[in-house]
Amino acid sequence: MNKTSRITVDSLENIMFKQFPVLDKGLVEVVDYMGGDESIPNAARTSYQAGTKTVNNDRGLIRYLMRNSHSSPFEFPRITLRVKAPLFVFAQWVRHRTQSINCQSARYSVMLDEFYIPSKDNMKPQSKSNKQGREGELTEKQISDYLEAINTVCETSYKTYEQLLNQSNGEVLVPDVEGLSRELARMVLPQNLYTNWVYTTDLHNLFHFLRLRADSHAQYEIRVYADLICDIVKQWVPIAYEAFEDYRLNAMNLSSMEVDMLKDFMNRDETIIQFSDDAFEYWNKGYGISKREYNEFRNKLNLT
Amino acid sequence: MNKTSRITVDSLENIMFKQFPVLDKGLVEVVDYMGGDESIPNAARTSYQAGTKTVNNDRGLIRYLMRNSHSSPFEFPRITLRVKAPLFVFAQWVRHRTQSINCQSARYSVMLDEFYIPSKDNMKPQSKSNKQGREGELTEKQISDYLEAINTVCETSYKTYEQLLNQSNGEVLVPDVEGLSRELARMVLPQNLYTNWVYTTDLHNLFHFLRLRADSHAQYEIRVYADLICDIVKQWVPIAYEAFEDYRLNAMNLSSMEVDMLKDFMNRDETIIQFSDDAFEYWNKGYGISKREYNEFRNKLNLT
Amino acid sequence: MNKTSRITVDSLENIMFKQFPVLDKGLVEVVDYMGGDESIPNAARTSYQAGTKTVNNDRGLIRYLMRNSHSSPFEFPRITLRVKAPLFVFAQWVRHRTQSINCQSARYSVMLDEFYIPSKDNMKPQSKSNKQGREGELTEKQISDYLEAINTVCETSYKTYEQLLNQSNGEVLVPDVEGLSRELARMVLPQNLYTNWVYTTDLHNLFHFLRLRADSHAQYEIRVYADLICDIVKQWVPIAYEAFEDYRLNAMNLSSMEVDMLKDFMNRDETIIQFSDDAFEYWNKGYGISKREYNEFRNKLNLT
Amino acid sequence: MNKTSRITVDSLENIMFKQFPVLDKGLVEVVDYMGGDESIPNAARTSYQAGTKTVNNDRGLIRYLMRNSHSSPFEFPRITLRVKAPLFVFAQWVRHRTQSINCQSARYSVMLDEFYIPSKDNMKPQSKSNKQGREGELTEKQISDYLEAINTVCETSYKTYEQLLNQSNGEVLVPDVEGLSRELARMVLPQNLYTNWVYTTDLHNLFHFLRLRADSHAQYEIRVYADLICDIVKQWVPIAYEAFEDYRLNAMNLSSMEVDMLKDFMNRDETIIQFSDDAFEYWNKGYGISKREYNEFRNKLNLT
Repeated sequence: MNKTSRITVDSLENIMFKQFPVLDKGLVEVVDYMGGDESIPNAARTSYQAGTKTVNNDRGLIRYLMRNSHSSPFEFPRITLRVKAPLFVFAQWVRHRTQSINCQSARYSVMLDEFYIPSKDNMKPQSKSNKQGREGELTEKQISDYLEAINTVCETSYKTYEQLLNQSNGEVLVPDVEGLSRELARMVLPQNLYTNWVYTTDLHNLFHFLRLRADSHAQYEIRVYADLICDIVKQWVPIAYEAFEDYRLNAMNLSSMEVDMLKDFMNRDETIIQFSDDAFEYWNKGYGISKREYNEFRNKLNLT
Repeated sequence: MNKTSRITVDSLENIMFKQFPVLDKGLVEVVDYMGGDESIPNAARTSYQAGTKTVNNDRGLIRYLMRNSHSSPFEFPRITLRVKAPLFVFAQWVRHRTQSINCQSARYSVMLDEFYIPSKDNMKPQSKSNKQGREGELTEKQISDYLEAINTVCETSYKTYEQLLNQSNGEVLVPDVEGLSRELARMVLPQNLYTNWVYTTDLHNLFHFLRLRADSHAQYEIRVYADLICDIVKQWVPIAYEAFEDYRLNAMNLSSMEVDMLKDFMNRDETIIQFSDDAFEYWNKGYGISKREYNEFRNKLNLT
Repeated sequence: MNKTSRITVDSLENIMFKQFPVLDKGLVEVVDYMGGDESIPNAARTSYQAGTKTVNNDRGLIRYLMRNSHSSPFEFPRITLRVKAPLFVFAQWVRHRTQSINCQSARYSVMLDEFYIPSKDNMKPQSKSNKQGREGELTEKQISDYLEAINTVCETSYKTYEQLLNQSNGEVLVPDVEGLSRELARMVLPQNLYTNWVYTTDLHNLFHFLRLRADSHAQYEIRVYADLICDIVKQWVPIAYEAFEDYRLNAMNLSSMEVDMLKDFMNRDETIIQFSDDAFEYWNKGYGISKREYNEFRNKLNLT
Repeated sequence: MNKTSRITVDSLENIMFKQFPVLDKGLVEVVDYMGGDESIPNAARTSYQAGTKTVNNDRGLIRYLMRNSHSSPFEFPRITLRVKAPLFVFAQWVRHRTQSINCQSARYSVMLDEFYIPSKDNMKPQSKSNKQGREGELTEKQISDYLEAINTVCETSYKTYEQLLNQSNGEVLVPDVEGLSRELARMVLPQNLYTNWVYTTDLHNLFHFLRLRADSHAQYEIRVYADLICDIVKQWVPIAYEAFEDYRLNAMNLSSMEVDMLKDFMNRDETIIQFSDDAFEYWNKGYGISKREYNEFRNKLNLT
């Protein structure tokens, strides 16, 4: 252990360098961090200067800032994570631009024989309602057929990769023959291959990532990483994380039509018109809401 | 053709929506742009306001700005391109963060049976000197063996993909059986699969991309895209592109040691000590340059 | 007028290069743009590829994307504006980092004698409730005293500026005497001095700017610029702007506590407990909402 | 002192929270940091994975990365600084977009009566050659006249500010009269007013800032901050800083014309043609270099 005069968060220190397992062979590991809950009011109070410290305690100020989208103070705490995940998860991760990443290069290094094989529970058919999701159940037979097919591709692809490199576990396969360059040979490896990266991001942008990737519409395989990182963030900045849950993650955005409907509904003496199936025409006429959004609204408020 | 009062560049208009082929099945297409060479001095002169227009003509000003790293005016011209390239090329492209990208989603859409197969000329062994490159020659036999292996992986992977989706060319393969969701099935597709994206970026950041990706150390398969985009940019902003070539692409960065060596060399009356192999000790003693960098320096100036 | 095969928006073309007045001496002018409403589905459909075009018409797709925070397609339309505004407005503007700016340099150019003087209507006292705002009324006497004081500072500062430069309207003031360098002399100019800049940004980031700066909590002097730009954007991308109004600008964010309260309220058979003043204890006990947020909630839904 | 398992840099710990004075009333203070020299190879080796650790020691790897513009590992170390500087310095600072800033708000807080007054040594006339700089000497008389004028503007502006707020040192000036809101009153304060901010940035982007702002063309008043931060960075990441000096700060960029001239010069048997004044025509004819750039080239290599 080193000594520092920096802000230190004991609950995070306790889990640093611990490799949390994700999926079948993946992991997340905290390798560095800067700041904690305190950093947020410290940054915010620069705007106010002396005098406001008494008005708000730290928790009240953090929640106020989150509630009112004052995002800059949340850019001060920072965390660095090491992640091991399949290539297709990395492809989603890397779309977020406000983070710094160093990832394993298949031009420099030989990729290991590690592929993501879904558990049986996660082998699901294409969702009918959600064009980008999975939903429903496959038969046991289908599941085992599909898993076998996936496993076969991984094995044969990796064998071909080794053949192209003319190398296996660091040993030459066929003497006196040159292998293909790594940057070309890796082309045959499928997208469930595991890769590694280290990345650093600030709390504000991490919250944005978590809101999108811990969401039920995110692909399961990245969502489990997001869920795990939520747990880590909770250890690191418990007050900010609680505010994030209350005002972002579990918050609800109402469209102007929904707002107007609600105001109409809640300010009448008698509530004859409810948000029933039959009442759609009333609301549609008054507020221009579409059938689809009307149903989404009812779902959002459990009015079914 | 539409009418506009915006800056218009005829030489670029002539090639808009033309699909330029790259690699075996890839393409680049200009789909939109904003501004041209003129936009750069227009932006720069905001800083100077009236009065400086006479001092510098546009060309002189553009070259001055490039030479002196005044980058903000180069952020005004903008271009939108559609690209079709292998997944591993996209993975390198997407690392650049100052661009806006929409790419094909294998969660939404079924990927087509299109894979990058290198030409024989580009099948090369691992470079010995450059850990991330290819160099030298393979025998005809190796090339055809390796190409066959690559082709086989593509075929079997795509067959498995169709089996998992239980779908081929939009037709169900096995009736009354559910396929695996697209977001999972795509896992088996190798990284030489072609994908599509549209992206938009400004000239300053595009130059940065081109400097890195049109460089001889970039992987051949992304370099050919960068080279083609260089040609497009030349049509679009010929003056800025020429300045980019003169002060960036074909420019040379000398380290402080190299600068000091050069100053020593060029300011002596008699040039007894040259940059020969034997003279290394002299330069190393005087300027602390390492053997490796000394040789790089000699290579840079053709002093071998 | 030039010919182009790019997307062209006639309603925006009609107002290009028109100088819209803002405040007493400010202006906003459209100097370039790229794309329009169409660019958004064009970008989005890259993700889906063929086949989805029939499902959604453009308007439906744009609204769907906005509603579900699929932001990347909104990064394709782009606009370039020239703005003249006081320095303190620029200081707020420049805090937004996802835009490209070229602004007038007081190191290069002599600043003109143009200062923002508020209209009498906008001279207001410090708000008691809002630490960063103005609210209430001043007497006529105070207003004229304060305006005179502001005017005096502007005049004397500018005179001093000329004295320091030893220059007025391009004429030397005292012969044979050197003036102070511009970069130092400008130090004495107050923050209501007008400056000029040209900047370019994409629609997604412009919407973010407008949401913050057209908000009632933004300072009046930047809000009038935001309001004017809202009008311009409406001419440019009417469908996207309408979606922005419906799902962002006039939308409402409910915290998880507010959501739970609403669900409780709307799913009971008898609505005995209302959101009255007296009922606070009930809601506080059940959902942990603070008094302050309870009142904010009631205000948001006009339940006072 | 707290305990941590993070990377700790003792030489930086020693100067944390120390307020380094800059200009007459400004300061810089280190308030947090993440990582050190070690973080750079740690990030870089993620790309290479096991096996390359033996090849390069940390110092060699850091210098290799800097020399070859492999910038991403330099985004891992991070520092948070508190700065007090004049408004016009902040205006230059904030143009850098890859940093997170919280600055004092004149809407929330009453600004203090602190203005930057240049030392006599720094009161210089407008440079004739450099449109954005100062150069040469003023007479004693001019200096004292100009300083008096600056002081007078500061005093009268601040007095007017207090009059507008109807407040001085927290005391009401005229009873029963309302002051103007802070967000308006601050308009009269000149740009040499001191303000405060806290900001955080990564080493790569800090180096970029330092290269531009520690440069001789940067305004003196921001350069002294950059120089001080250079000293701090040297304490924090001595190896990376040395590489920054050798390959960036003291490096030289040669244009393609300059490169070609040098190659011609250095590879001839007899060096008849030198880079003399007379020889311009020869070099201009052969390499198209302009007179201005020819002279710049000779200056760069001390060939005058």
